[in-house]
Amino acid sequence: MPLYMDHHKNVEGLTADAVADAHQKDLEVQDKHGAKALKYWFNEEKGEVFCLFDAPSAEAAEAVHREGHGLMADEIVEVKEGS
Amino acid sequence: MPLYMDHHKNVEGLTADAVADAHQKDLEVQDKHGAKALKYWFNEEKGEVFCLFDAPSAEAAEAVHREGHGLMADEIVEVKEGS
Repeated sequence: MPLYMDHHKNVEGLTADAVADAHQKDLEVQDKHGAKALKYWFNEEKGEVFCLFDAPSAEAAEAVHREGHGLMADEIVEVKEGS
Repeated sequence: MPLYMDHHKNVEGLTADAVADAHQKDLEVQDKHGAKALKYWFNEEKGEVFCLFDAPSAEAAEAVHREGHGLMADEIVEVKEGS
């Protein structure tokens, strides 16, 4: 399954708890979309989040965020992981 | 040590081999800057690369790229990793 990295910018009111909660919601709905939210990295002050997904398509990864919490990334790109 | 994610965009002529080579050069110079290039993800068609670093500062992470190969990221942000 392809890997995708998304990048959320300027997320207002981002806190570690809020992003953990959003990630938890992703986990709860991801099976329906055949996707797996693998990891995320965030910066509270800047309101940035990077999410790494295993997903059948970018649309499937986006659907997880849409259904989980509605906080959509500014961009998403298919990636390969360097070894 | 803080974690940093950087994002390179529109890298011309990016190939898996070229990015692996650049990463290898990061590894060769990183000790001098007290940094550790942990992982990277890339997209050849779009010329994008995300690099995850352990580094004492953003400047130290940037110095690794500058000295290793000169390919500087468009942005770099301190991040925490979600659990």
